[in-house]
Amino acid sequence: MATRWGLCGAGKISHDFSVAMKTLPPGDHQIVAVAARSLERAQEFAKKHSIPKAYGSYEELTSDPEIDMVYLGVLHTEHWRVGLLVLQAGKNMLCEKPFAMNSREVGDLIAASKKSNVFLMEAIWSRCFPLHREVRRLLAEDAIGDVKLVKASFGSPQLHILRSVEKELGGGALLDIGVYTLQFVLMVFNGERPESIHATGVLLNSGVDESMVVVMKFPRNRLAICFFSIAVSLPNDATISGTKGTIRVLGPMHCPTTLEVNGKMTQYPLPEPSLPLNFTNSTGLRYEAEEVRQCLLKGLKESPKMPLSESALLTEVMDECRKQVGVVFNQDSQ
Amino acid sequence: MATRWGLCGAGKISHDFSVAMKTLPPGDHQIVAVAARSLERAQEFAKKHSIPKAYGSYEELTSDPEIDMVYLGVLHTEHWRVGLLVLQAGKNMLCEKPFAMNSREVGDLIAASKKSNVFLMEAIWSRCFPLHREVRRLLAEDAIGDVKLVKASFGSPQLHILRSVEKELGGGALLDIGVYTLQFVLMVFNGERPESIHATGVLLNSGVDESMVVVMKFPRNRLAICFFSIAVSLPNDATISGTKGTIRVLGPMHCPTTLEVNGKMTQYPLPEPSLPLNFTNSTGLRYEAEEVRQCLLKGLKESPKMPLSESALLTEVMDECRKQVGVVFNQDSQ
Repeated sequence: MATRWGLCGAGKISHDFSVAMKTLPPGDHQIVAVAARSLERAQEFAKKHSIPKAYGSYEELTSDPEIDMVYLGVLHTEHWRVGLLVLQAGKNMLCEKPFAMNSREVGDLIAASKKSNVFLMEAIWSRCFPLHREVRRLLAEDAIGDVKLVKASFGSPQLHILRSVEKELGGGALLDIGVYTLQFVLMVFNGERPESIHATGVLLNSGVDESMVVVMKFPRNRLAICFFSIAVSLPNDATISGTKGTIRVLGPMHCPTTLEVNGKMTQYPLPEPSLPLNFTNSTGLRYEAEEVRQCLLKGLKESPKMPLSESALLTEVMDECRKQVGVVFNQDSQ
Repeated sequence: MATRWGLCGAGKISHDFSVAMKTLPPGDHQIVAVAARSLERAQEFAKKHSIPKAYGSYEELTSDPEIDMVYLGVLHTEHWRVGLLVLQAGKNMLCEKPFAMNSREVGDLIAASKKSNVFLMEAIWSRCFPLHREVRRLLAEDAIGDVKLVKASFGSPQLHILRSVEKELGGGALLDIGVYTLQFVLMVFNGERPESIHATGVLLNSGVDESMVVVMKFPRNRLAICFFSIAVSLPNDATISGTKGTIRVLGPMHCPTTLEVNGKMTQYPLPEPSLPLNFTNSTGLRYEAEEVRQCLLKGLKESPKMPLSESALLTEVMDECRKQVGVVFNQDSQ
């Protein structure tokens, strides 16, 4: 039986998610409804992607009994509010990154999922890419010896995009793209908690972070460096340096298709999209959709690829970085 | 008239320096003498490199009136002691990096050079490479817009080398290779003083640094990241990210021959050595030798490519990094 999806949000990422879904067998995944704040917008989206139902409110979608799983693709300032609606309605949910604005909000979402006994996962799609299965295998097999240093960077000039720079829209480099570099580090260190975190950053006039460098020290003398910026291009890649070799995830590190292990490259090509996409490599959203399906089939309430404990840790690390650099959202004082 | 050089030290770097000199016109540069702690070793070196005179002590060399310029290639724990000998004897000096063990020692060397009114330069050979003329030109012409972030990294597994790991021999990643990444950042920011420095590191049992990450913030919201290790291989390269483009100095960044500006590569090939070398690309030592000659011909007492003020700042930054990470040399308590 197909997993029956409902989409909350009819924006750019929901578009790409819908296109990515079309690369999967229709017997496995169906998008049965889409909801937006405006019915017209939802209807337009539904028409474009041949989705049977369109709703002009998230409440309508969450009460649709045909839906097994909600994809939450609204602005992340709305993840907490709309996410709680979804979870309290007893729906499983895949929630776009960043999970929410801070640890309090993420904690509420996790608690709501446990109370409703539903599946919940932060949509860190990177972790579901086939390439990452190989990275995890190599690390588990100690293929590059003791990991000593992990580096991940991502920089993309987007000061012209309102969503990226306005504080009320949850702007800043950290929550938008820095999250990818941090989650990579946490993946390599298998969800271990860093011993120390130090963030140095540069703010925009709006009060959000333009660029940041985060250095973490992990137990057993292991270091990690993340740097990211919405002002300039930076290498969008990641390197794991071990005593016996190096693993490189080539750009784009957040949706990667090229792995280099001790100089040897392997490609993990993506399927072609049937419509133009908004974001790089985003037919790769198919992998997280399929991960969700597999988890549901096994009766899991979270994904081992991105467990809720790791989402919570990731958010804690981001809270700490924002605190050190001086980025405060309205949500932080609630 | 040729610049008449005397070499203090008959080790690996003096070997490479002598080989590099042979790629320059003999009418411009002559090595007239070499000194080592053992006369036999000096004689052997002199024979190998066809150097007329060999001395069994540095005192003898510094009192040789035929010598214009001393190349100080002894272990850096000895730079202060032997360097003072050289400068107090009224000789010009090119001093291998790191300049000395700490700011106190470097201050003494600079003071001695001023007192004797002689030329003094820290042998940051990287800065004399032809590629760097182009980097400086591009920066001066604002070719990549506002520089926002500079990254330099260098990692080379050398835990098997005694000099690299023993504290009494001035070991640790910072002084050996980290210095190259830091000097690159200071060059890009034209000797400006960082507003903040934060170092995170990992120590060996011997008490020296195995790996370190240094984050600096410069005035006008500019960031720099250096990371380096003697435990693992790391990308040995540097990136300057600006609002209008990117300059990459490809590996080996400390003696570079490949420059990439907005994706366009340019090669700056080195001459072939006449004898096998100990270090990568070290016929490139010719450029610092020629820089010294040009400074002397102009009557300069320091090089504009690596002014003494910048060597002093570089050492201050390294002192601060060591302090934060907990690397203390015997020389620090004197």
